[in-house]
Amino acid sequence: MRTNPSALGSADDIEQQFYEALREGDLDKLMNLWADDDDIVCVHPEGARIVGPAAIRAAFEAMLSNGALDVRAENVRRVQTHASAMHSVVEHVRLMTPDGVRSGFVVATNVYMKLAEGWRLVAHHASPGATGERRELPETPQVLH
Amino acid sequence: MRTNPSALGSADDIEQQFYEALREGDLDKLMNLWADDDDIVCVHPEGARIVGPAAIRAAFEAMLSNGALDVRAENVRRVQTHASAMHSVVEHVRLMTPDGVRSGFVVATNVYMKLAEGWRLVAHHASPGATGERRELPETPQVLH
Repeated sequence: MRTNPSALGSADDIEQQFYEALREGDLDKLMNLWADDDDIVCVHPEGARIVGPAAIRAAFEAMLSNGALDVRAENVRRVQTHASAMHSVVEHVRLMTPDGVRSGFVVATNVYMKLAEGWRLVAHHASPGATGERRELPETPQVLH
Repeated sequence: MRTNPSALGSADDIEQQFYEALREGDLDKLMNLWADDDDIVCVHPEGARIVGPAAIRAAFEAMLSNGALDVRAENVRRVQTHASAMHSVVEHVRLMTPDGVRSGFVVATNVYMKLAEGWRLVAHHASPGATGERRELPETPQVLH
């Protein structure tokens, strides 16, 4: 539980922890970042939407059952107010396959709100990135660190 | 320009106008709903992310060049604060094809913020709905009206 969230950069902080939790395969850490609300939503690439904490936890549990996920968020675009933030990121995913390391890109929208308990994730919507995703984003990558 | 946005229900109002504009093929009406911010983001099904007002306008112009879109938002799930709202909707799209009317479902996340100019759309992320999208959502559809 985060007891003293700072107002500035808190959405970035939650986002950093979200991708860390995926890389660490830490389901509890991952789920602690979400708002406790029946209408929180998660959409994985090529998947149906998943609504509510229990269903979202089950989906991530299945996803992480094969191990942690090598994923990094790049090219972050942000629109924010003092108590909400929309981050659009390009997720760079690397998968080990029998043919070696395969790299792919996923486009994700992450929505954060400052609630009574602090900043929390309320939506994660991910879909397959188009071929050439990075070429369409000429900016210097803003890698979370 | 909306000059007197009410605090309550304003995100719903913008959302209603968004889908109305698509059904009417009204590009100006559609674009007036977006925040004037270089980092607003739009992702169409199976598409790359599109960033900024000019690029988003061009993409919707291309989409509407064949006529209006028969689309309705159903099964709305909402998480909101006083100045931000995340809506997850299932878009029911009907297309006229040589074989008759075809129906499809799209999962979309719409993000609204109350900015200096009033409530505005800051992100629209749509991806193909999984087969059986509606079966996974047993609630009574909440059709916008």
